[in-house]
Amino acid sequence: MSGTEETRWPDAEQHERALARIEAISRLPVYRDRPVSLLTDLYELTMMYGHFQAGRHRQRVVFDLYYRTNPSGNGYVIAAGLEQVVWYLHNLRFTDADIAYLRSLRLFSEPFLEYLRTFRFTGDLYAVPEGTIVFPNEPLLRLEGPIDELQLVESALMTFINHQSLIATKAQRIVDAAATAQGARAPVIEMGLRRAQNMDASVFGARAAFIGGCVGTSNVLAGQSFGIPVSGTMGHSWVQSFPSELEAFRAYANAFPDDTVLLVDTYDVLRSGVPNAIQVGRELAASGRRLKAIRIDSGDIAYLSKQARRMLDEAGLHDVGIIASSDLNEWTIRDLIVQGARINAWGVGTSLITSYDHPALGAVYKLAAQEEGGVLRPRIKISENANKITNPGKKKVLRFYVNGRASADLIALDDESFNPSEPLELFDPVHTYKRKVIQGFEMEALLQPVYIGGRLVYELPDLRQIRRHVEAGLARFAPEILRHVNPHIYHVDLSQRLWDLKQRLLHEWRP
Amino acid sequence: MSGTEETRWPDAEQHERALARIEAISRLPVYRDRPVSLLTDLYELTMMYGHFQAGRHRQRVVFDLYYRTNPSGNGYVIAAGLEQVVWYLHNLRFTDADIAYLRSLRLFSEPFLEYLRTFRFTGDLYAVPEGTIVFPNEPLLRLEGPIDELQLVESALMTFINHQSLIATKAQRIVDAAATAQGARAPVIEMGLRRAQNMDASVFGARAAFIGGCVGTSNVLAGQSFGIPVSGTMGHSWVQSFPSELEAFRAYANAFPDDTVLLVDTYDVLRSGVPNAIQVGRELAASGRRLKAIRIDSGDIAYLSKQARRMLDEAGLHDVGIIASSDLNEWTIRDLIVQGARINAWGVGTSLITSYDHPALGAVYKLAAQEEGGVLRPRIKISENANKITNPGKKKVLRFYVNGRASADLIALDDESFNPSEPLELFDPVHTYKRKVIQGFEMEALLQPVYIGGRLVYELPDLRQIRRHVEAGLARFAPEILRHVNPHIYHVDLSQRLWDLKQRLLHEWRP
Repeated sequence: MSGTEETRWPDAEQHERALARIEAISRLPVYRDRPVSLLTDLYELTMMYGHFQAGRHRQRVVFDLYYRTNPSGNGYVIAAGLEQVVWYLHNLRFTDADIAYLRSLRLFSEPFLEYLRTFRFTGDLYAVPEGTIVFPNEPLLRLEGPIDELQLVESALMTFINHQSLIATKAQRIVDAAATAQGARAPVIEMGLRRAQNMDASVFGARAAFIGGCVGTSNVLAGQSFGIPVSGTMGHSWVQSFPSELEAFRAYANAFPDDTVLLVDTYDVLRSGVPNAIQVGRELAASGRRLKAIRIDSGDIAYLSKQARRMLDEAGLHDVGIIASSDLNEWTIRDLIVQGARINAWGVGTSLITSYDHPALGAVYKLAAQEEGGVLRPRIKISENANKITNPGKKKVLRFYVNGRASADLIALDDESFNPSEPLELFDPVHTYKRKVIQGFEMEALLQPVYIGGRLVYELPDLRQIRRHVEAGLARFAPEILRHVNPHIYHVDLSQRLWDLKQRLLHEWRP
Repeated sequence: MSGTEETRWPDAEQHERALARIEAISRLPVYRDRPVSLLTDLYELTMMYGHFQAGRHRQRVVFDLYYRTNPSGNGYVIAAGLEQVVWYLHNLRFTDADIAYLRSLRLFSEPFLEYLRTFRFTGDLYAVPEGTIVFPNEPLLRLEGPIDELQLVESALMTFINHQSLIATKAQRIVDAAATAQGARAPVIEMGLRRAQNMDASVFGARAAFIGGCVGTSNVLAGQSFGIPVSGTMGHSWVQSFPSELEAFRAYANAFPDDTVLLVDTYDVLRSGVPNAIQVGRELAASGRRLKAIRIDSGDIAYLSKQARRMLDEAGLHDVGIIASSDLNEWTIRDLIVQGARINAWGVGTSLITSYDHPALGAVYKLAAQEEGGVLRPRIKISENANKITNPGKKKVLRFYVNGRASADLIALDDESFNPSEPLELFDPVHTYKRKVIQGFEMEALLQPVYIGGRLVYELPDLRQIRRHVEAGLARFAPEILRHVNPHIYHVDLSQRLWDLKQRLLHEWRP
């Protein structure tokens, strides 16, 4: 948090560092040599072409990317996906093969196809850093640049931000549910590869899950790509493939004497799995080692974990953990904790990696301003549905903290300034009689410069920094806003000037 | 359909064709140089290593991949994803960077890491061709080979089959819903890129949607990669960026005089959008062209489409189509048709590309047999949940047709044979008193050889062949099985020998 809304313009050295970082990221296996320019909806290209034909493709515009509804009944979203956005913009160019394909569609002229050969992103991007707590209607990305560029990138930018923000948010709900009544947190491990909506969903989903607070992933490619801790032990097929469960457990302990986690539900948890695990635990102890944990993957986790805990304790194996992994989500985890389940770590798959109950975020990308006679003019999108009417103009988002706690966000025009030493009256943009005055506040500008004139000025943070940013952010919100069910609605207000502008454009508009 | 269950062993020429085809596929932008070996759960690697340490990693086993529950209340699934499976197996090898990463985990010995350097898939794969109608518990893939290989590939194979089968099935529901009461079908276009769970979900989802019957996609990369027809015209930002809607429409018609589709809901469909579209339609007609369609993306589609149709007809523009695209799914489409909405094509995004109401298929991968003393012995996985008990042994799946209509499927042991000229008694594997006798049947073996001894013997079909396979398959099932709500449950029985084997193993088993 800067304490002032002024953005610092980076020097050449920072630009070099930012470039070195994105080039290193672009060499990661999940990013390397991936096709980018055609990852778009055809209408972006037809619109580009239409503007090109009309000679207006370099007209300067401003677009906002934001979402309207929080997923899963949550009170907020954790913004994620910016690294992917920067990777995409940095590598955005049309290859010969791309142009040949576009030619084959018989939609575009040769001059346009020729123009695409040298196409690069030359615009500005302001973005909320990954891991920032955000709310409906707040621009997460604000782009400014030629209309053809900003149109082309629409689809991919939405895909990246929608997906990673969705999964980070879902993960954080699940991680939060794993806090016990005493406030202790059993760690959550992301294990959803096999149920993910294909490869990228698994890898970038694991990344988002780590941002949301998961301690690790089962996904080795995500581990390799992003340095996320990987974990995993055995499946039922391991146990089945041995003549007996005890032999299977012994063979595993032999291969991983310092990292033995035994899956105890292949046959019968309490009659077979736990007794055999205790046997192996004792054998490990006899050689100075320690059985790390058992894992229960089916059945009544509350009952089984309590019985298993008792059996392990009676055998003196107090420090052997119990891991649960059986179609879990934030509700089943919370319910198991309420029932007194004795679980030391949770493995969560399907519900996390797909955000099963709400599998799409639905961010939108809307024109906010447009050059006219050399000046940016605000633009508004009318709708019969009032909450779909856009906020016009080039905007910023400010977060106000009072006594260190986030008190309200304000969407304002970019050239507005606010003085933290003077009282500021905020009002609800719909029910305008609802007003409150804040004073003695701190102020944080959420949108940070990422690209300026096509020049990367933002050094992407590493994943651990992003995760700490989430933790620090959450700590500054009231628990009523963070709770899982019926959270308080956090205030996102419009500045008086923005509100006046919006009203004026609404009244002026004629079909 | 072969009419006999005998599989033909391909000659060298077929192998060459199969190889040439997968190598061409591997060069497609969506596949080229993608990382494969680490796209796995860590536990696959720890199990491989455990087997390696125990000197049993080359023990021969059989695994089945199948699912247990149809998604979205459907009565079946359309199998998809095999192309991705073959791409993965064909390209499966550990790079130096992969091995360096695995070394960094400090879990594996150098001899094991060295062993991975030359690791290749050497097993057998039998699979149902993409586009086959399949049912719960039927193996979609059957693998046989060394346990380390079959363990490694588990996670990725599930991801591919789960995702593409899920989306193909969802797409087919939506396409089917777009059949009017008169049986005419308005085409469905997949438009979900921005809401997809990242890049692969959009591209492979578009592929699966085409298999399921969509006529095209908005996703240009999917078009380039798989030859799927692409379509797209303009977004609201196009209209907003012009001084007036009429100018926006004219500029678009000027750029695409032979392919003009106008988005009419930016301001007001009936007071502005449709009148302006009619104006441009007349102007196009005056120059011998034709306005192709209008698109409505919000509001009351039933009311608006009927009014728009009337207005277009009154203007003599009878051949101008109406496209709808507004948070549609199989239920809203069917409901709009019942209300008499006048829609000529549907664009479907979020609900299709995420299978929103059921965003994961949940296929599993289970050990079915294992070498013991040089012979494959059946293996069973016990569970307290009866429907989670596996079917043991190396199996095949037969589909019986009576009078050309699919009558029942039978899961049998691979070495069983059935004589179509003799009566065959089938029985429900749970309620065994439910029996029926079929005779004069045709018989189709669903599992086809894909790899034999690590040698690719299956020439992957192109997407249009797969789509025709879906259509031909659906035509052979009773409508009661295909309907969207409470479909009849299609019989998937076990052969007497398989049933006896399963009972014997269940009774023999002791924890």
